[in-house]
Amino acid sequence: MAAERLVYLNGAMVPEADARISLFDSQNIWGDMVFETTRTFEHRPFKLREHLDRLYASLAVTQIDAGLSIDAMERVTLELLERNRAAYASEVDFNIVHNVSRGPIPLYADAFSGGIGPTVAIFTWPLIKNLGPLAQYYESGVHAVTPRQRSIPARLLDPKVKSRARLHYQMAQLEMAHFGPDAWAVLLDEDGYLTEGTGSNFFLVRDGELLTPEPRNVLRGVTRQTVLDLAAELHIPAQAANIEPYDAITADEAFFTSTPFCLMPATRFNGRAVGDGRVGPVFQRLTDAFAESAGLDFIEQARGYAATLGLA
Amino acid sequence: MAAERLVYLNGAMVPEADARISLFDSQNIWGDMVFETTRTFEHRPFKLREHLDRLYASLAVTQIDAGLSIDAMERVTLELLERNRAAYASEVDFNIVHNVSRGPIPLYADAFSGGIGPTVAIFTWPLIKNLGPLAQYYESGVHAVTPRQRSIPARLLDPKVKSRARLHYQMAQLEMAHFGPDAWAVLLDEDGYLTEGTGSNFFLVRDGELLTPEPRNVLRGVTRQTVLDLAAELHIPAQAANIEPYDAITADEAFFTSTPFCLMPATRFNGRAVGDGRVGPVFQRLTDAFAESAGLDFIEQARGYAATLGLA
Amino acid sequence: MAAERLVYLNGAMVPEADARISLFDSQNIWGDMVFETTRTFEHRPFKLREHLDRLYASLAVTQIDAGLSIDAMERVTLELLERNRAAYASEVDFNIVHNVSRGPIPLYADAFSGGIGPTVAIFTWPLIKNLGPLAQYYESGVHAVTPRQRSIPARLLDPKVKSRARLHYQMAQLEMAHFGPDAWAVLLDEDGYLTEGTGSNFFLVRDGELLTPEPRNVLRGVTRQTVLDLAAELHIPAQAANIEPYDAITADEAFFTSTPFCLMPATRFNGRAVGDGRVGPVFQRLTDAFAESAGLDFIEQARGYAATLGLA
Amino acid sequence: MAAERLVYLNGAMVPEADARISLFDSQNIWGDMVFETTRTFEHRPFKLREHLDRLYASLAVTQIDAGLSIDAMERVTLELLERNRAAYASEVDFNIVHNVSRGPIPLYADAFSGGIGPTVAIFTWPLIKNLGPLAQYYESGVHAVTPRQRSIPARLLDPKVKSRARLHYQMAQLEMAHFGPDAWAVLLDEDGYLTEGTGSNFFLVRDGELLTPEPRNVLRGVTRQTVLDLAAELHIPAQAANIEPYDAITADEAFFTSTPFCLMPATRFNGRAVGDGRVGPVFQRLTDAFAESAGLDFIEQARGYAATLGLA
Amino acid sequence: MAAERLVYLNGAMVPEADARISLFDSQNIWGDMVFETTRTFEHRPFKLREHLDRLYASLAVTQIDAGLSIDAMERVTLELLERNRAAYASEVDFNIVHNVSRGPIPLYADAFSGGIGPTVAIFTWPLIKNLGPLAQYYESGVHAVTPRQRSIPARLLDPKVKSRARLHYQMAQLEMAHFGPDAWAVLLDEDGYLTEGTGSNFFLVRDGELLTPEPRNVLRGVTRQTVLDLAAELHIPAQAANIEPYDAITADEAFFTSTPFCLMPATRFNGRAVGDGRVGPVFQRLTDAFAESAGLDFIEQARGYAATLGLA
Amino acid sequence: MAAERLVYLNGAMVPEADARISLFDSQNIWGDMVFETTRTFEHRPFKLREHLDRLYASLAVTQIDAGLSIDAMERVTLELLERNRAAYASEVDFNIVHNVSRGPIPLYADAFSGGIGPTVAIFTWPLIKNLGPLAQYYESGVHAVTPRQRSIPARLLDPKVKSRARLHYQMAQLEMAHFGPDAWAVLLDEDGYLTEGTGSNFFLVRDGELLTPEPRNVLRGVTRQTVLDLAAELHIPAQAANIEPYDAITADEAFFTSTPFCLMPATRFNGRAVGDGRVGPVFQRLTDAFAESAGLDFIEQARGYAATLGLA
Repeated sequence: MAAERLVYLNGAMVPEADARISLFDSQNIWGDMVFETTRTFEHRPFKLREHLDRLYASLAVTQIDAGLSIDAMERVTLELLERNRAAYASEVDFNIVHNVSRGPIPLYADAFSGGIGPTVAIFTWPLIKNLGPLAQYYESGVHAVTPRQRSIPARLLDPKVKSRARLHYQMAQLEMAHFGPDAWAVLLDEDGYLTEGTGSNFFLVRDGELLTPEPRNVLRGVTRQTVLDLAAELHIPAQAANIEPYDAITADEAFFTSTPFCLMPATRFNGRAVGDGRVGPVFQRLTDAFAESAGLDFIEQARGYAATLGLA
Repeated sequence: MAAERLVYLNGAMVPEADARISLFDSQNIWGDMVFETTRTFEHRPFKLREHLDRLYASLAVTQIDAGLSIDAMERVTLELLERNRAAYASEVDFNIVHNVSRGPIPLYADAFSGGIGPTVAIFTWPLIKNLGPLAQYYESGVHAVTPRQRSIPARLLDPKVKSRARLHYQMAQLEMAHFGPDAWAVLLDEDGYLTEGTGSNFFLVRDGELLTPEPRNVLRGVTRQTVLDLAAELHIPAQAANIEPYDAITADEAFFTSTPFCLMPATRFNGRAVGDGRVGPVFQRLTDAFAESAGLDFIEQARGYAATLGLA
Repeated sequence: MAAERLVYLNGAMVPEADARISLFDSQNIWGDMVFETTRTFEHRPFKLREHLDRLYASLAVTQIDAGLSIDAMERVTLELLERNRAAYASEVDFNIVHNVSRGPIPLYADAFSGGIGPTVAIFTWPLIKNLGPLAQYYESGVHAVTPRQRSIPARLLDPKVKSRARLHYQMAQLEMAHFGPDAWAVLLDEDGYLTEGTGSNFFLVRDGELLTPEPRNVLRGVTRQTVLDLAAELHIPAQAANIEPYDAITADEAFFTSTPFCLMPATRFNGRAVGDGRVGPVFQRLTDAFAESAGLDFIEQARGYAATLGLA
Repeated sequence: MAAERLVYLNGAMVPEADARISLFDSQNIWGDMVFETTRTFEHRPFKLREHLDRLYASLAVTQIDAGLSIDAMERVTLELLERNRAAYASEVDFNIVHNVSRGPIPLYADAFSGGIGPTVAIFTWPLIKNLGPLAQYYESGVHAVTPRQRSIPARLLDPKVKSRARLHYQMAQLEMAHFGPDAWAVLLDEDGYLTEGTGSNFFLVRDGELLTPEPRNVLRGVTRQTVLDLAAELHIPAQAANIEPYDAITADEAFFTSTPFCLMPATRFNGRAVGDGRVGPVFQRLTDAFAESAGLDFIEQARGYAATLGLA
Repeated sequence: MAAERLVYLNGAMVPEADARISLFDSQNIWGDMVFETTRTFEHRPFKLREHLDRLYASLAVTQIDAGLSIDAMERVTLELLERNRAAYASEVDFNIVHNVSRGPIPLYADAFSGGIGPTVAIFTWPLIKNLGPLAQYYESGVHAVTPRQRSIPARLLDPKVKSRARLHYQMAQLEMAHFGPDAWAVLLDEDGYLTEGTGSNFFLVRDGELLTPEPRNVLRGVTRQTVLDLAAELHIPAQAANIEPYDAITADEAFFTSTPFCLMPATRFNGRAVGDGRVGPVFQRLTDAFAESAGLDFIEQARGYAATLGLA
Repeated sequence: MAAERLVYLNGAMVPEADARISLFDSQNIWGDMVFETTRTFEHRPFKLREHLDRLYASLAVTQIDAGLSIDAMERVTLELLERNRAAYASEVDFNIVHNVSRGPIPLYADAFSGGIGPTVAIFTWPLIKNLGPLAQYYESGVHAVTPRQRSIPARLLDPKVKSRARLHYQMAQLEMAHFGPDAWAVLLDEDGYLTEGTGSNFFLVRDGELLTPEPRNVLRGVTRQTVLDLAAELHIPAQAANIEPYDAITADEAFFTSTPFCLMPATRFNGRAVGDGRVGPVFQRLTDAFAESAGLDFIEQARGYAATLGLA
């Protein structure tokens, strides 16, 4: 790997190894922060502004003042990318993560030379190790499994606000150990409706129509919206609905979406095949359209990463 | 302030300023960690073993392996106190915080020279700034207020497991701004029962009997248990029950308990006086018994801290 | 009937026919008022102070200032009884009703010569027509029926606060038309637990033990408490519990309590006999004890009223 | 003010000062009544028939027989307006309130010379004091605040049936005291969805689309429907949906609707600005269309009332 | 009645009298089976394939392997009809029931000579006694009544999977005894929404629009779908929605659908007339279209059965 | 195996192979039946009367008339045992199952020569194959696992009424396949409390105290009650409480109870050891007391069965 990666931390560009958060930061005391993850395609950030819009909505809900306007945030992000240009080989895309916490809590102010104020961190991370191991699943599909752990309803802790206070997602992932390495959690809410994965959205296809959970107990994902927009362009009917396990068991296709892996087919659901158990045509059309829109065949890219990692 | 404070971090004793958690630690990615706060009375840790018992219960629930037995954890804690002896003036007591996260997530392993494994941090913090500003309330009582933000039920995110994934507590605290500086949040659960403060337990006294919420949607506080034990010794009847705002409005006394401030009277509840609006006799008896058991008049100590801070 | 009855209305003693509430009173606009009903035994009010205590708790919850201390309220009540002495024949007992509303709403102030302030009304009403028709049921028992209409949980509208905002009780009563003239509603809450009648509490007897719903989604009735006190004196074990229809169907006895009729046996529940379908021994013992404590055989009295009405 | 206002009371036209409801009326015992409020524009009742339709739906649900057909009710209403013509200056519009209770309860029949039967009251009230103080908010917007008090779900007490059993609305309003004079309550239901104000409906505008809560736990307001109809005419897309606080915080505009004030902008929501914190263009278009449809600039009218009251 | 009826039982065609299920079958131990009911019109099965599709969806959810492909199941069904041809007079239509259980439970294997495996039974039953008594209601309409018994939500026991584990439906029917012989249960779910009858779907008509409960806590009936398809052909707008008792009380028409009786008007709801209390025009249009589509006037047929039974 | 086993079926003693239920029986149409399972110790039925008491409570709830008094039911049971005496080797104990359904449904009356009436079946079954495979777990303990499938709350389908409408138990068992052969389901209710196994009750031991779920969403098991009675005799404190997974993870011991296997230790819970992961002393004491009370070492017996089956 080339040059050292830098991280934006409260106005400074610091080496990644120094990108740490104080134990006395509100993030570490209360999980009191919000964040966003944006990915690049050939080093171009994809829908950065949409991600920042959502970041600023999260800031409004949590009443955190980032101390930077959204325009300024975009500027420093682009500057960071510029500064890290040499750190990434041309074939390596990366995530851009924006972390904003309320900052050091006043009680511990003495521990901070820099005084009290929000902690704004922007860092990047190569997607090789993230996406390489997933390459195989673009072909086989993953196994969507509903864990015992249920979603926390938005009225108690809003999943539309992307924060790190999400131990329950980790608990859901731990349960997947019983279901094999290809098991991906898709959480039910307490009404029994499917919501989302632990960092992804979920879609079904039935009789040619696209179905995805209502935008209530889920993150309103940027990739989710992109897929809905593409479906509209492709004249694939789509609706947000209350979706149940019965719908998944009787669907023709299923897939996850998220920023890093874009779209990922799910060919099994709670131990039963979805449709004929293979990657389906609607997934294929949407994937092609997404790749075209992003200007990159992201599946091919992931296969390349797998090869790099010796997985293929 | 005297010598520099040290922090135990994964086997090393490091200066406090270096006590930071990587952005790539599971704590910072998922809120995936558990912790405990123990306080000292004249530098002696109070019920350290009870706190560690609860820490290890939290570790079992979250399936985090701390890499240290509970006995070893106790030993390094005592060693840390020994090493920090010179850092605390004799009249200054402190909190001991144990933080255990699942550690760097494998995806980001490259960022860590030390490899993958749990992150165990133990740090201490003087209680002056914490307790000094509270001294006044031992006399006037605080105003207990139920925010809009409800407790997350234990079935979704268990409050008995003390983690940092608790943004909802911070949201509850932000609401208190509308109710004045003496407003302390006491959260209702979705059944309408009182649960706990944001880091404290809650008690009522009615007709000479002590009432506290059932140990369900609350942290089973060490101080809470101490108060129940003292009540038994003092022959004050006590029960854990489903308590509603109606019970608080018609109670004779109310108070909070927590590790740092021990017991704190609440003389108002949602804008109405509790009893005659003054600190009551049962609170007084329990406070006296607690101070005797701890070997320190903690109210007097807080007043001293207030004086130090120029607040008295 | 003898002399004209008077009603206490905002400081004045007015004839009953003039005891009306303005359409512009907060009671008539928002159901915004609280009340209590106390009965007499041989013209002596029974547990008046307990009723006034509850009235003042209701006032505290609703933040209505009656403009009278509880002592003053008691005094004017006794004065009203004195003034009405000639209005009641010696064998006729009566209810005393305290109605306190927030008063005329400011918007309509022009309509009130007396200005803005609480509306306090105290009136009395002979129990003949109330109790006479019930006399038969002391022998046969009533039929307890759970309507479709569920209790409103205390967290939304607290039944412990006795207000007139209780259209749902009327809706429950309307359902009883399908179940015959002896059907009395006993409402379930949404957890499926029995709560209370529409103005009464409910008890079961099983294996010699008295069971009554937890004091949560029910009015904490003065008669209910009296029965629990008498049970303690009689060494009948008793507990407040979560009671289900299954418990009623498998119980040995069941009964209602309320201020006007004291205790009333229920010998059927949802169409099935309770126990052997007859009035049981525990009911009998409690009734005897209650009558002794009240200084009057209230069943005998009701029979007298039935005779007066030509019902016996 | 000119001639004395009359009130229709059970067939008679009586002076307003005599328009009182007996303490023994079912309305005062059980909150057992339904009502409607219709306003006039230049003395013409607005959508009177729609209001009466809803009144008769409420009567059907509560099984109250008004003793008058809907046509007869309309006739006496118009007759009342005719009789009150001299009581209102030309620039003064008024509310027409229809109150129908089940009437005196049989137990208290002796207290009523008129016998047992429904109590039907129709009264009018000038809007000056109601609307004058609101005039300022047409420009600044009000502050929409969600209180702790939640909506009672329709399955327990149906808000579509307009009754006076609504103490919970008053409790919600009392909470507003903490949020300043411009705070208006908008209640959440227990699923966390926005429902309605205490006598008004609520709308959001986002990306040019109108959003209002599903017609479930809300009164299906006549003004609400008028706004939806006007939106259709203006080609503003609109949908009834499950709306959450997140939606309000991220909306571009918000407003309330109700019969007396028609439309009222809300420029803050739970302490955060809605959109840019100013009255928005969609509100403006709807307001203009509404005024045109009603034949009166109601905002101008309110300003006139404010001037009359010396508030402007 | 003509020739003896045969039943398909695990590969054999057996006389009806021998069509019994072992006490040790999983159906009799756990209610562990799924089924479908298809009816004939002039001996032609109606939408058999749609019923079998749903049967196989139920098998997938319950993880029962029928041991027959859907095509094979269709073939043996048609063969059974052929074999039973002589058993039915030409004017007598019948139900075809498919019952598939997981079969003898291994613990009891010794009791079965045929070994362990699914139990597949297909039987037919003449509709005379089923439909004859209903003929009168096509004219008068039935009385739809919501029982106390609520629907079990799909997340706990999915009504979309047609199984015999439905004691709660029987409990709902038992309640109807209080409401007269024409009372048909329509269950509410715990949110207060109308769901379905005990083996039928429910529709409302309001302002010319067809409304039926969302396909969530209901069986997604084949007749229900047929009605929705016919409505589309007839340009009657239709939507699946959350429907409440208020909607039924204020509707213009109501009706049930199911496989045996097709469509059945409901002219009363919870004791109140629906619309004008008579069979309505939308019901009429849908019924005509259904009869045409089925190739048989099913109402006329039912009248014939009533005459046969001496009921007309 | 010796003589042929007989089954009591509606008054007759028939060979087991003929013990079948018609497809047209209400049990097979609606799951409309109730049952009980009683076991023998050395051929003596254990607490038969307690089981019959519960059977008759179930009959009362479901309004099924068995056509036999409880005394008559007991008599025919004992007679059946007598008749089957030769069918059981002396060392083989057995279950006695009472099945009572509402009987053939009237619609299908023609299919029944015996006419319409309840179906009462009593059969017995040797416990060898049931208990032999379980013998090993008395030493190792089983693994208690909470499935995704939740308990149906008693308000919807009462688990205290033992019926075959329990497909959800089978669904819970199917999930156990992911957790290994020793995984036993213990269901959570929707509040997150532990309820029961699929045919068993569940206990915890913590700090020497016995804990078991409140008798609400569980079958009130005869063995459960026996264990509570034995605990009282042994001065082991015990309480029925709301128990959560946290309690199980932090307990010292856990075990199941049921009629066939009596008590069975659970040494793991959701993948974590309970206590030290071994069978504990309180289990041992209760097991010894149970065996003494039953007059048989049931663990030793199960080992004998295992040997017979060649499993040991």
